[in-house]
Amino acid sequence: MKKHNAAIIGYGNIGKYTLEALLASTDFEVAGIVRRDASNVPDELKNFKVVDHISKLENVDVAILCSPTRSVETQAQAILAMGINTVDSFDIHGEIWDLKQRLSPIAVANNVVSIIAAGWDPGTDSVVRALMEAMTSKSSIHTNFGPGKSMGHSVAAKAVKGVKDALSMTLPAGESKHRREVYIQLEDGADPAIVEHLLKTDDYFAHDDTQVIFVDDVSKHETADHGVNLVCKGISGQTPNQNMEFSMCINNPALTAQVLVSVARASFKQSPGCYTMIELPMIDLLEGEKEYWIKKLV
Amino acid sequence: MKKHNAAIIGYGNIGKYTLEALLASTDFEVAGIVRRDASNVPDELKNFKVVDHISKLENVDVAILCSPTRSVETQAQAILAMGINTVDSFDIHGEIWDLKQRLSPIAVANNVVSIIAAGWDPGTDSVVRALMEAMTSKSSIHTNFGPGKSMGHSVAAKAVKGVKDALSMTLPAGESKHRREVYIQLEDGADPAIVEHLLKTDDYFAHDDTQVIFVDDVSKHETADHGVNLVCKGISGQTPNQNMEFSMCINNPALTAQVLVSVARASFKQSPGCYTMIELPMIDLLEGEKEYWIKKLV
Repeated sequence: MKKHNAAIIGYGNIGKYTLEALLASTDFEVAGIVRRDASNVPDELKNFKVVDHISKLENVDVAILCSPTRSVETQAQAILAMGINTVDSFDIHGEIWDLKQRLSPIAVANNVVSIIAAGWDPGTDSVVRALMEAMTSKSSIHTNFGPGKSMGHSVAAKAVKGVKDALSMTLPAGESKHRREVYIQLEDGADPAIVEHLLKTDDYFAHDDTQVIFVDDVSKHETADHGVNLVCKGISGQTPNQNMEFSMCINNPALTAQVLVSVARASFKQSPGCYTMIELPMIDLLEGEKEYWIKKLV
Repeated sequence: MKKHNAAIIGYGNIGKYTLEALLASTDFEVAGIVRRDASNVPDELKNFKVVDHISKLENVDVAILCSPTRSVETQAQAILAMGINTVDSFDIHGEIWDLKQRLSPIAVANNVVSIIAAGWDPGTDSVVRALMEAMTSKSSIHTNFGPGKSMGHSVAAKAVKGVKDALSMTLPAGESKHRREVYIQLEDGADPAIVEHLLKTDDYFAHDDTQVIFVDDVSKHETADHGVNLVCKGISGQTPNQNMEFSMCINNPALTAQVLVSVARASFKQSPGCYTMIELPMIDLLEGEKEYWIKKLV
């Protein structure tokens, strides 16, 4: 069987776990890793091509975008235009539909597939919410995150001027409400009041109760644990009291990376265009034959 | 917007709830109800066409098969050959792949769609299991049912010679194991030993610890409650201890009927052929526009 040739774009937290997830599959080859400084080759990359641009890799079938959400669109546009599938875990919920509208014509024009917003939320949680909607005619669904480190919010906090290092914790505050505790290590001379104002007015933080905690060393607070509790109370037809719940306790970047690899696999089974996870048949994410999975899972 | 014209085939437990689920949607019309005795028209059917054969209904787009699992294949074959989509909740797990193989060419030849095994298990639970597999590179998944009434097993028990009425309860026995308690009301003169032997050697019951309880009146034990607890411990990439869980407490026939109506909707969005639920994008099951659902759920 021909293996899919995957490039990892960005080698931070998600990139490292994506390499592990690719190595744990048998239907992918690692085409190479793209990072800004290609001379920075840690031990575990010694046997892989490390380059500073995807054009320096050969025969790439899919690019797994492991860079911050805000660089996803520019990267995806350029890579789709090269005739290469892309997958990403773009995580700004309110912008996903518009991103799909912008990437879809580029994907179609280049006869390739882009799968966006494919992590766990947005991503697999979105699939669970869609399933709960399909099981009910009316429902109220609550998504309660954490406690855990939000990677997207931590990256957003690190991007605030005056911040040397940051970690954003998500804490459930009941029925879809959350609060955030953001550990901030300031750059020398930065004004804490200005940093706090910039952070709290950033779109990532403006909608939740956010507490800023200034610390000397953010690394002492690091964690990869996260989780979610998705609760649905609904009516099937005209019958109330249909109660459903999905929960998980997971290593956050490891799960995101696994989902990225699974949707990278699914990208080869879709018509040209741009998709979110609720638009994909779940069987397309799985390695191996349909017969095996239908016999095992259905 | 043109509404889908749905026929309900069989008006037992599932058929009744399917009518309610159709009435709770705004994108379906009820073409009519097909039952063996079309002169048997209870009050709630007074405003609908009740006929003894689907050929007596006009412009049917999809037939929702609400009859016992073992009559599904014959019915689906005949209705697909009439150029009408079918959906069913066929529930013998080990026979689903083969059923798909047999119905698929008939669906393709008649340019229609058949969606099979679409209840909650097989059905929505299958989607959850597929999602859990997509979130892990290795995993162990356990499906623990109940306590609750198994409709499929109750129908199978009622079909045993000498049984007047029956109710089969599914009780969790830990880590995917179950036992069954089957309440049996005998026909006059039936031999309990023979009935028990026939039941325990039936393929529905042969694989589980089954206790037969003879009672005077099965109806005193009736319940529509059921539930499931689906547990996954897995490895994402190379990271262990990824723990996920899906649970629900539901009215069983109401949920099955709602899922049947949701997949009936999805049937209009697939290419001709026969599908199980893990082969469908979840968004296709939902009433309304993609934009609405992607903005709401992703």
